[in-house]
Amino acid sequence: MVLVDEAGSKVTFVGGVFSNHLNPVQAVIERRITAAELEALRDGEANFVDVTFLSPIPVPVRNIFAVGKNYIEHATEFDKSGFNATSGAAAVPAFPQIFTKATTSLAGPTDDIRFDPAHTSSVDYEGEIGVVIGAECRNVAPADALGKVFGFIALNDVTARDLQKNHAQWFLGKSLDTFCPVGPWIATSDESPAASLKVQTWVNGELRQNGVLTDLIFDVPTLIATLSKAMTLLPGDIIATGTPVGVGIGHTPPKFLQDGDLVRVAVTGLGELNNRVRTR
Amino acid sequence: MVLVDEAGSKVTFVGGVFSNHLNPVQAVIERRITAAELEALRDGEANFVDVTFLSPIPVPVRNIFAVGKNYIEHATEFDKSGFNATSGAAAVPAFPQIFTKATTSLAGPTDDIRFDPAHTSSVDYEGEIGVVIGAECRNVAPADALGKVFGFIALNDVTARDLQKNHAQWFLGKSLDTFCPVGPWIATSDESPAASLKVQTWVNGELRQNGVLTDLIFDVPTLIATLSKAMTLLPGDIIATGTPVGVGIGHTPPKFLQDGDLVRVAVTGLGELNNRVRTR
Repeated sequence: MVLVDEAGSKVTFVGGVFSNHLNPVQAVIERRITAAELEALRDGEANFVDVTFLSPIPVPVRNIFAVGKNYIEHATEFDKSGFNATSGAAAVPAFPQIFTKATTSLAGPTDDIRFDPAHTSSVDYEGEIGVVIGAECRNVAPADALGKVFGFIALNDVTARDLQKNHAQWFLGKSLDTFCPVGPWIATSDESPAASLKVQTWVNGELRQNGVLTDLIFDVPTLIATLSKAMTLLPGDIIATGTPVGVGIGHTPPKFLQDGDLVRVAVTGLGELNNRVRTR
Repeated sequence: MVLVDEAGSKVTFVGGVFSNHLNPVQAVIERRITAAELEALRDGEANFVDVTFLSPIPVPVRNIFAVGKNYIEHATEFDKSGFNATSGAAAVPAFPQIFTKATTSLAGPTDDIRFDPAHTSSVDYEGEIGVVIGAECRNVAPADALGKVFGFIALNDVTARDLQKNHAQWFLGKSLDTFCPVGPWIATSDESPAASLKVQTWVNGELRQNGVLTDLIFDVPTLIATLSKAMTLLPGDIIATGTPVGVGIGHTPPKFLQDGDLVRVAVTGLGELNNRVRTR
């Protein structure tokens, strides 16, 4: 495990009990270990550019929560695309549309996005801002919700549009192995106020998405309140908050991901994902 | 952890490393520990009726997979009910409609099903046969799929119909805490061939559902093949295979669960769930 400085120029290695820990960030969240306590375990440092980042949480506690149609312009482009099997498709949903992505879809910030073209021919990107829950909680009022957030993370909600449509429920098309790149790090909520977060997505250097978290139809406090009204949230839970306008199916004709494409997702202060698409 | 004999008259306690294990059945599945190896760790026995059974898997590795509209007559009753937000509602879906239930929805075979009437007023039962995966697997051919099954388990896919409809995606209305009673045990696949399984549901002693696994639209091999084509399946994964006709919204007017109701789900050879409904 490493700590990343705000300037993004160097990383500090954390030793002690975390030297060989299998899921150190999850342990930090669960045990509420402070930055000062981690600093005390410092065990060398390195230049940022010399480090290969992996997923900050290699094995999530359970499926990743995700929200569909949570930016107005994206809701419109999705409904127009013909890939939405949900009826009553108002441009602005009255309630958050929440689904999950399988734990095994998780990938690191530079891992390949892999799929078999015989299985899906319409793979799409969805650059998003993810929320990482910091404490077990239930029935959280919106006013208290940000206090339950450990931090934020960049995330790509990669989607097989044909499977998303054919199976009606979105889970399967969202859950292929490698279809949830996250990272490179988690910015703790004190470092990275939600109000300032912007997410951008490029494919082969072409800017496709450019959204701000403040444009969410259902904001982070509302999402946490909605989820925690139904179920107990757990430390380490990840909520993908939704993608802004500009996904592949928003174009005419649709621009699906092809073998060799490089998808880059960057979020203010959260670093960036650079995932190559590989078919096999 | 206990072993249950086929006659259902007595249970054998398993000692050794399993005496104080937090998730013993998961460990048995992951490490492929045989019945003979467990028998060798026997540490006393008790009469069946003197034992209170808990969930065989208290903490599942991730969300429970579940399949909607997987019996023809139930698909029809659901579409007619007005609670299905999925468009193109053919009586027989062309592809399995797969969603998940949160890990925190899991409950034991005699735990209460709890909900707040201010949050949902249309809670429904769905008696089902669950499949427990025995080995990590990917791209499993239907002919090989039953070889990946550890066993079968009785399951109630309890559902808040209003939330299922309002949130369009089914996940939220399926995932309230206590909304997935399972147990009382897992019957290993050698003991309990899938072809013989029947699921029945009673509410306050009234028989409401009576289905056989052989009536599934998408059978167990097809479900495992479909899921494993998209993602790696894990030891301990649970697949709720779908519910037969006779749920509450299949009645006119709908028969929703009320405080004090007793829901009983029994599956041939898998024992039964007896869960009391409690509002608070």
